[in-house]
Amino acid sequence: MVDFIYHNPTKIVFGKNKESLIGAEIAPFGVKKVLLCYGSERIKSDGLYKKVTDSLVKEGIAWVELGGVVSNPKLSKVKEGIALAQKEHVEAILAIGGGSVLDSSKTIAVGALVKNDVWDFFIGKVAIEKALPVFAVMTLAATGSEMNGFAVVSNEETKQKYSIHSEHIYPKVSILNPELTKSVPNDYLAYSAVDIIAHVIEGYFTASTQPHFQSRMVESIVKTVMESTEILLQNPEDYNARAEFMWAATQALNGSTTAGTNPSGFPNHMIEHSLSALFNIAHGAGLAIVIPAWMQWFKNQNHAQFERFSKEIFGLDSVDEGILALKNWFAKIGAPVHLEEASISKNEISAIAENAAQTAVVWGMNAVYTKHAIEDILHNA
Amino acid sequence: MVDFIYHNPTKIVFGKNKESLIGAEIAPFGVKKVLLCYGSERIKSDGLYKKVTDSLVKEGIAWVELGGVVSNPKLSKVKEGIALAQKEHVEAILAIGGGSVLDSSKTIAVGALVKNDVWDFFIGKVAIEKALPVFAVMTLAATGSEMNGFAVVSNEETKQKYSIHSEHIYPKVSILNPELTKSVPNDYLAYSAVDIIAHVIEGYFTASTQPHFQSRMVESIVKTVMESTEILLQNPEDYNARAEFMWAATQALNGSTTAGTNPSGFPNHMIEHSLSALFNIAHGAGLAIVIPAWMQWFKNQNHAQFERFSKEIFGLDSVDEGILALKNWFAKIGAPVHLEEASISKNEISAIAENAAQTAVVWGMNAVYTKHAIEDILHNA
Repeated sequence: MVDFIYHNPTKIVFGKNKESLIGAEIAPFGVKKVLLCYGSERIKSDGLYKKVTDSLVKEGIAWVELGGVVSNPKLSKVKEGIALAQKEHVEAILAIGGGSVLDSSKTIAVGALVKNDVWDFFIGKVAIEKALPVFAVMTLAATGSEMNGFAVVSNEETKQKYSIHSEHIYPKVSILNPELTKSVPNDYLAYSAVDIIAHVIEGYFTASTQPHFQSRMVESIVKTVMESTEILLQNPEDYNARAEFMWAATQALNGSTTAGTNPSGFPNHMIEHSLSALFNIAHGAGLAIVIPAWMQWFKNQNHAQFERFSKEIFGLDSVDEGILALKNWFAKIGAPVHLEEASISKNEISAIAENAAQTAVVWGMNAVYTKHAIEDILHNA
Repeated sequence: MVDFIYHNPTKIVFGKNKESLIGAEIAPFGVKKVLLCYGSERIKSDGLYKKVTDSLVKEGIAWVELGGVVSNPKLSKVKEGIALAQKEHVEAILAIGGGSVLDSSKTIAVGALVKNDVWDFFIGKVAIEKALPVFAVMTLAATGSEMNGFAVVSNEETKQKYSIHSEHIYPKVSILNPELTKSVPNDYLAYSAVDIIAHVIEGYFTASTQPHFQSRMVESIVKTVMESTEILLQNPEDYNARAEFMWAATQALNGSTTAGTNPSGFPNHMIEHSLSALFNIAHGAGLAIVIPAWMQWFKNQNHAQFERFSKEIFGLDSVDEGILALKNWFAKIGAPVHLEEASISKNEISAIAENAAQTAVVWGMNAVYTKHAIEDILHNA
């Protein structure tokens, strides 16, 4: 096992109606005013906004609002939030939504306390030294952002989708009520399932040191996600399946599956970020296209682990059968598995690879992931 | 899934020689003087004491010492530590050892800040409201105390082995260096394996709501412990097996396997505590005797889960075969599985049951675990 530090201080409050407790969870931090960050206005019609703000009022916590955060969250919206947070002197950021809202909130929490351009943190020009406390009420289970120190934002001008990581942006408290994810349509449920699986298999396949326990945790998450996704596509009302799906999503990227391993980056995420940056497709949809293509390209570099995956997840003996089974499962739940299905022509491969190769430099993965290598991978899709 | 709160702020620093970092981990808390709590004087001959104190010196942290903590840690020693901590005005407790040393340290951390008898917290007479910060350098992997808010202490006068739980006694930082567990003899390695398995299967079998993901986590821990124990009994030098064993021990009782479940107590621990309180046998040895007996007694109350266990862990179809397989595995690694093997005569069963029935009252389990029921269980052993 590789030496590691595991420290995840986020408090998870999980269950029905727990969003009503958010005020009581924020109050002990001495916060008197928050920036309430959200996506669509739907939360004002479906009652969530009222439940959350009622709990803030109850604790005497004031708020200002930043709505309109979209998926593949944009730097321009983040900068709008930073300006508002500074002007209004908020003491914390409260995210209500999915990963995009939370990632925007984390970035605002960092940017609100500095004078420099917040993008400097994404390109590694400046190190993150502090942030406003972040709180979250999740309405989507996918990114794991509710219990980690990552945030991903897209820069529309430069067409770059980059990420930051810092101990300072772990949410202090994240409320996870599986019932709030009911409004997620089936296609996004499928994309979320792909995203969760991607989070755990990136390390599972790329780590040169992979303890058995961590492999078993990854397999437990993949099995749980596949099982609960199939139940939810049939019956969106199944609370237990929603709860299993939501908790698996959190476990998938909270550091527990990679403790003691040495994953060599997130190649599938890296390549997918270029797809969503250039074509604005859903992150999970892009991953469903990239993953089987990447697995075919990478399989011989860790053959034993690919064999283990085929056996443990699908009960299959051959690596190729396992990769095909995963690809077929993505297709079965309604995710695209070829570029064409996302209306991306093969002629775009060079441009995508060019963009991803830039990310590879920032992520320190350019030794292996050259433009040429990324083109080879994308030609499998 | 049942509603839950998951919040585990302990920082784990895992790997070779990490004990040299303990001073640097304590310093940021502004601590200038600690009570260094340990068991045998061996740490002064094997170099561990020097590495730890050198790192304290480096950070300008002073210390006073409390050695001689024994397994099934005694209240009298804890009280000695509380008096010393108060007299010397220490600002934190540093445990160097296994679960017994850490549990004693946690209890001293609570007792040092109050005037009342610390046993009042164990019998539920007084609630824990604060504690000195606790730090740990582990030399044994078993109890999971390094990443939870539990402490178990034995009251020699009343022959009671009781526990406390509080958010205030989670260690701030726990150093886990698998190499420090090399000195553990094979019999104690076996007892530790039984203890770890016990920690996860108590909830696994008694929870009326048991999500698939949590069951899979438990099975992952049990498989990892069995696998690494067999490797270590053959080759104590196998670092990876030590690391897998140690991390599995921590995961087994840090709250992650029970999040979302509703275990109905720790019946095997409850009954075993009477064995070790009355006969001072090793906790893991007592558990190896109690568990198969309890499983036989309890199996029909959660038959499906017992079937799942037999299938997942041993590939067996019948519940009885699974229970026998676990019992045989305990025996195979050198743990006692009958009272006689611990030189406890059947005539003692009534006295053990009497003692355990008292604990059942304190643990709120007396509705099911009457003296008579506990006698029935022990007659299976």
